[in-house]
Amino acid sequence: MTRQQLISQIRAKQSFLCVGLDSDITKLPAVVRTAADPVFEFNKAIIEATHDLCVAYKPNLAFYESLGPKGWDTLQKTLEVIPQDVFTIADAKRGDIGNTGEQYAKAFFNELCFDSITLSPYMGKDSIVPFLKQDGKWAIVLALTSNEGAMDFQTLSLETFDGPEKVYERVLKSVANWGTDANTMFVVGATRPEMLGEVRKLVPNHFFLVPGVGAQGGSLQDVCKYGLNEDVGLLVNASRSIIFASDGPDFAEKARVEALKMQQEMAVILSEKL
Amino acid sequence: MTRQQLISQIRAKQSFLCVGLDSDITKLPAVVRTAADPVFEFNKAIIEATHDLCVAYKPNLAFYESLGPKGWDTLQKTLEVIPQDVFTIADAKRGDIGNTGEQYAKAFFNELCFDSITLSPYMGKDSIVPFLKQDGKWAIVLALTSNEGAMDFQTLSLETFDGPEKVYERVLKSVANWGTDANTMFVVGATRPEMLGEVRKLVPNHFFLVPGVGAQGGSLQDVCKYGLNEDVGLLVNASRSIIFASDGPDFAEKARVEALKMQQEMAVILSEKL
Repeated sequence: MTRQQLISQIRAKQSFLCVGLDSDITKLPAVVRTAADPVFEFNKAIIEATHDLCVAYKPNLAFYESLGPKGWDTLQKTLEVIPQDVFTIADAKRGDIGNTGEQYAKAFFNELCFDSITLSPYMGKDSIVPFLKQDGKWAIVLALTSNEGAMDFQTLSLETFDGPEKVYERVLKSVANWGTDANTMFVVGATRPEMLGEVRKLVPNHFFLVPGVGAQGGSLQDVCKYGLNEDVGLLVNASRSIIFASDGPDFAEKARVEALKMQQEMAVILSEKL
Repeated sequence: MTRQQLISQIRAKQSFLCVGLDSDITKLPAVVRTAADPVFEFNKAIIEATHDLCVAYKPNLAFYESLGPKGWDTLQKTLEVIPQDVFTIADAKRGDIGNTGEQYAKAFFNELCFDSITLSPYMGKDSIVPFLKQDGKWAIVLALTSNEGAMDFQTLSLETFDGPEKVYERVLKSVANWGTDANTMFVVGATRPEMLGEVRKLVPNHFFLVPGVGAQGGSLQDVCKYGLNEDVGLLVNASRSIIFASDGPDFAEKARVEALKMQQEMAVILSEKL
């Protein structure tokens, strides 16, 4: 999906919601547990109930890989029921170089047909560029994550000649130089909204994938205050607060209620700010 | 596998060779290409030909994931033909937090029964500790990798109060505090042997997984000069130089010849140094 298609979808749906398909098999509602492929049945119902309210789905690969070979099938079937106009993110946090990176790009972009994949930047340029070679495919690079451990390495200060700089800031600047705002996004957590403002100054045009709103405590208002740009520039992810809103037979209906709440809040923000 | 079992295996085989099963399906010898599962047939032959000469196998996950659901089966079957006394490394370079990390640990340690997994440290402590909870299972954390991009972030200098410190040095010190030398190893590339000496000073007891010898140009002598400790403390990986030594019907035999060369060089080093 191109940047322009993504922006058009956001404007049409008045939403920049990404639904995280962290479909932990141990947490599924009883009503799908007897299905031949419970995770797929669950995902299918969630997608049918929410696809007009969100602009992206983000399966977290861990929940599929932990199912063994069957999990890969589940993932493939899930992707097939996501409407073509919705952006798809493989939350894989991969990062490997050269030929290995190319293999991952092939696996996620061409076998599974994801639009994008999340990547860890630790190995540097040659672990990112293999993912920047196909039109309409995206690398979403971890910059400042929403977890506690983000403070262990990402926020350390670097010795520089021209003023203070943190590790995640260097990541932002470097990666922004390797790709463009049409094939690269950044993961920037919602749990540190004022830092999100600093990030926005460094990379004014890039899209950010923002986890941490909802269950992790980040506020949508704060994220938008600091993160919105002229093209919206945000994909705000919510996982558990939507997909596990109910564990009863009404799970899909309740997921829609939660997604609708977020979409409506987003529509108001878009009408006020843009 | 416990640290003591690993050390005993190294002493018994007079080898600290790890064979990287980067079994790229496009590079397999013609003789296995007609098999129902070419990558598995290839791996099986390589394992049969080399398992008495090496102490570890390291499948790079990218080459299996790019095969789709079938690749996961291939990986599972491959693990089943690796003898129990050989250490297994999932070269996955994962890194995710909390419940997601636990899912990956389950996938690799308990579904596929790997002894260890490679991890990227960028997300910090909560992305490493989920992998330190099972006896005999190991986290192998990227510290200083052997690729060019290692210089992009890993070797940047940090602002500190007590002397110079690089990002990868902080990673080493922090991770060494989160785990022990019985459940944590580090990836340290062979392409920078003198830096390997600095790393050894910081973490004297930990095992290092060392890529970059052979095809990438690192020297085994240099790696040992700077990296050996009293318990050997090294797993030196070679992939392409062994598994793709020949693309004829003698591929397994030629792989054995290359593995034997390295094992013999290692035996000499062990007899001289330890």
